[in-house]
Amino acid sequence: MSGPTLTFWCALLCVFRAQKIETSSPPNFVIMLMDDMGWGDLGVLGQPSRETPNLDAMAAQGMLLPNFYTANPLCSPSRASLLTGRLPVRNGFYTTNGHARNAYTPQEIVGGISPDEILLPQMLKKKGYVSKIVGKWHLGHRAQYLPLKNGFDEWFGAPNCHFGPYNNSERPNIPVYNNSEMVGRYYEEFEIDKKTGESNLTQIYLQEGLDFIYRQNLAQQPFFLYWAADATHAPVYASRHFLGKSQRGRYGDAVMELDYSVGQILSKLRTLDIENNTFVFFTSDNGAALMSGPNESGSNGPFLCGKETTYEGGMREPAIAWWPGHISAGTVDFQLASVMDLYTTSLSLAGISPPDDRLLDGLDLSPILLNSSHIHQNRPIFFYRGNELMAVRLGQYKAHFWTWTNSWEELHKGVNFCPGQEVPGVTTHEQKEHTLQPLIFHLGRDPGEKFPISVLTKEYLDVLSRISAVVERHKKTLVAGIPQLNMCDLAVMNWAPAGCEKLGKCLKAPTSTPWKCEWPH
Amino acid sequence: MSGPTLTFWCALLCVFRAQKIETSSPPNFVIMLMDDMGWGDLGVLGQPSRETPNLDAMAAQGMLLPNFYTANPLCSPSRASLLTGRLPVRNGFYTTNGHARNAYTPQEIVGGISPDEILLPQMLKKKGYVSKIVGKWHLGHRAQYLPLKNGFDEWFGAPNCHFGPYNNSERPNIPVYNNSEMVGRYYEEFEIDKKTGESNLTQIYLQEGLDFIYRQNLAQQPFFLYWAADATHAPVYASRHFLGKSQRGRYGDAVMELDYSVGQILSKLRTLDIENNTFVFFTSDNGAALMSGPNESGSNGPFLCGKETTYEGGMREPAIAWWPGHISAGTVDFQLASVMDLYTTSLSLAGISPPDDRLLDGLDLSPILLNSSHIHQNRPIFFYRGNELMAVRLGQYKAHFWTWTNSWEELHKGVNFCPGQEVPGVTTHEQKEHTLQPLIFHLGRDPGEKFPISVLTKEYLDVLSRISAVVERHKKTLVAGIPQLNMCDLAVMNWAPAGCEKLGKCLKAPTSTPWKCEWPH
Repeated sequence: MSGPTLTFWCALLCVFRAQKIETSSPPNFVIMLMDDMGWGDLGVLGQPSRETPNLDAMAAQGMLLPNFYTANPLCSPSRASLLTGRLPVRNGFYTTNGHARNAYTPQEIVGGISPDEILLPQMLKKKGYVSKIVGKWHLGHRAQYLPLKNGFDEWFGAPNCHFGPYNNSERPNIPVYNNSEMVGRYYEEFEIDKKTGESNLTQIYLQEGLDFIYRQNLAQQPFFLYWAADATHAPVYASRHFLGKSQRGRYGDAVMELDYSVGQILSKLRTLDIENNTFVFFTSDNGAALMSGPNESGSNGPFLCGKETTYEGGMREPAIAWWPGHISAGTVDFQLASVMDLYTTSLSLAGISPPDDRLLDGLDLSPILLNSSHIHQNRPIFFYRGNELMAVRLGQYKAHFWTWTNSWEELHKGVNFCPGQEVPGVTTHEQKEHTLQPLIFHLGRDPGEKFPISVLTKEYLDVLSRISAVVERHKKTLVAGIPQLNMCDLAVMNWAPAGCEKLGKCLKAPTSTPWKCEWPH
Repeated sequence: MSGPTLTFWCALLCVFRAQKIETSSPPNFVIMLMDDMGWGDLGVLGQPSRETPNLDAMAAQGMLLPNFYTANPLCSPSRASLLTGRLPVRNGFYTTNGHARNAYTPQEIVGGISPDEILLPQMLKKKGYVSKIVGKWHLGHRAQYLPLKNGFDEWFGAPNCHFGPYNNSERPNIPVYNNSEMVGRYYEEFEIDKKTGESNLTQIYLQEGLDFIYRQNLAQQPFFLYWAADATHAPVYASRHFLGKSQRGRYGDAVMELDYSVGQILSKLRTLDIENNTFVFFTSDNGAALMSGPNESGSNGPFLCGKETTYEGGMREPAIAWWPGHISAGTVDFQLASVMDLYTTSLSLAGISPPDDRLLDGLDLSPILLNSSHIHQNRPIFFYRGNELMAVRLGQYKAHFWTWTNSWEELHKGVNFCPGQEVPGVTTHEQKEHTLQPLIFHLGRDPGEKFPISVLTKEYLDVLSRISAVVERHKKTLVAGIPQLNMCDLAVMNWAPAGCEKLGKCLKAPTSTPWKCEWPH
């Protein structure tokens, strides 16, 4: 074959391949989930120091979703909802040990993600996706609950929060896994200096993410990267290069390093020329953890309270969708959307039918993302705390059926979910029921939930009747999952995770003495 | 002379003229000052409904200044400072009738801008500028205090707030002036429907502004337009086309109309091809008036409290500088800056030496605007309330020497400057002195002023010594002006403004019975 003819065939082949990628290949997915980062922590969302140039650029190149919500004001249930497309009360990530209690997966938790749930990476396998989670898992740390048992092909990260250091006798330090085996523990092989705030974990997570993208691209493999860095969760940390760089103190240093990492990941996609074939989404698991004080917590912008609560500050999240060539640059969409939509939307974009044997709470946002059309005008947002539906948003209106921050007892001990904020009758320190006459706010006029609409107005009555119908329908069809976060046991802690033998890091578990976990708020 | 030669000369002349404009002509000035609009009301500063596309575009084409302050948390003193480049305590726009009281220019005020002050339009006259104020004046309404007696060549607007309607017997309605004569009164010839919120005043003000720009350009006249629309001051209003358009209710409608107007003004400058020769600045007179409730007040974003207070919400202002070809597009500068800098900066850009017989508080921002260089690292911001220096910001630190929102008595009547916010020991309801041990906040870590830095830390002591030196220097050199806002008298109200005879709208003034004005907060 002569030279020119070879070139001709090659060119034809290239065009064909390029077209195939453009038109029919399902995209790769990168979901970047932050930990306790607040709505107001991004420059583009009004943080006064404006230290997120990469995220601001991502928004300028993609779509900003100012009405995006998590499914729970706490980490574990929120993450379970992202990966199952279902509310915690359905997927089992809640407790019935007390009324309206926030529950998660500390080391002593017995439960984890139910085997009956079908996680996003399991679904994506149908189309040959390879999936990796980098960072925090938080859906249970016992062997059967870990990522590689639940659809992920790779994992680098930890099953629980990076609390510690512990003495390994009463409580083991949290293990860090590489795939199915531990490779060390926090505060041991993976250092976090709580005094200086130094840790290079975000850099490790960044490299793990970049390396995964590089390898999958090389193998021409569609991929799902779930990048769940946790530097903004207390104890907040950053690597040496970023420490002291922010105007916002240590928390800001962590944000700057995460923002840098986002920039690096997007840049890697561009360098590999796969940015037009990779759907990227950035969000956070719950509102800023205001109880952690000024050095270790972020900002919920103009919203009320934060993490642990069902006010806007607890559950409204920063959210940016990015997919050059598919999502128009610099768009803003006000659709009420949820972290659970990422499940449904990803399946839709991958051309995979969602499971039809269960109710999904996620909606397919792709028509909005790709055409910027509002398709779900009457889509409600449900604000659960444990087993209780605390509030519902419908359009601009939000009705609170129950209000609670935390108990007076906790508050007097200094645990404050709403520092500097107090709205009489709204931020209550006992569980206050309003089911017969909910507190209703117009979030357009009053995003800070400070001025309940008078019950004597026509507006109130109109809204009440519309929201009541939604609630009735929701409750009537609700089949609650078996609660997974009820039982605790010191014996189930991370004493001897797989791989500990090789490292000589197995610890002896105490005798099993299970108890019903206590969830104070 | 043959055709081609004429063309040649003409072309040469045009090039010469164009070059002259580019290099040596002093620019025109447009200062757009909003009324009670808050820092958090702009999309670019995080308002969740993002309804300010023109302002957001203005920021994208110009420079955003997130650390820009007014000189007082109240309208009249703030406006007096803009036009004099001096703190209210120097230019006389304060009261000594009580300690740390906010005072302004209601109809019964006897005083106004002192004849000893030299206003910006008076200075600009030295270089042949023609100046117009459109909208709210608020520096005194008696004949000698009006704009055309104080340097402005034209005026369309009103001397006081658009409160009312009044019955014209106990209290006259506020007159609207066209230059030196009234052309009607609010709620009479110039309607504001308080029930529906409809008024076409912003449209009138917009046309007045556009017309002035058009005429000055036609006359090849350098100009200063001070565009002081007041639609976001309660009672909030918008014209029919904008009513009901916002997701934020009536206040949002007013913002949308003002945003539209900003867009029209910038567009006019472009159409006339003078955008490269016109320095435009957008800001507001004080923080959002949170006491006006959800329908008639804006947002101060993540900041504490609002109008009337010396917390950040009372005095940090949205600020955008725009000057295509001179100010780099899409820049953000964190310089601590003040509305008083507009005086000094304008004079600098116009090539006029500032008055040398008095202390000016404004700095020349032009090096920052034109080169984005930080030149004033140690520039303090002074937070006065009436005759008291309540707080000082230096770098990221702010020290409160006095704290006060308002009295318990007022609060119990429902007047709340910090609805939904309460920071124990900070938002105090009595005047609390902290001069020996000020409350100090780091505004980078804690923009909401919620967590005072512990007095036991080295950080506190370091900051205290630096700020104390600044305060000492400031107080030592302070020559307070004669307070202009001490005396009230029903006889001085707008009974018979110039021009009332022609309209048959003169009212009879009561006998003069002056009293010391009462300023409750």
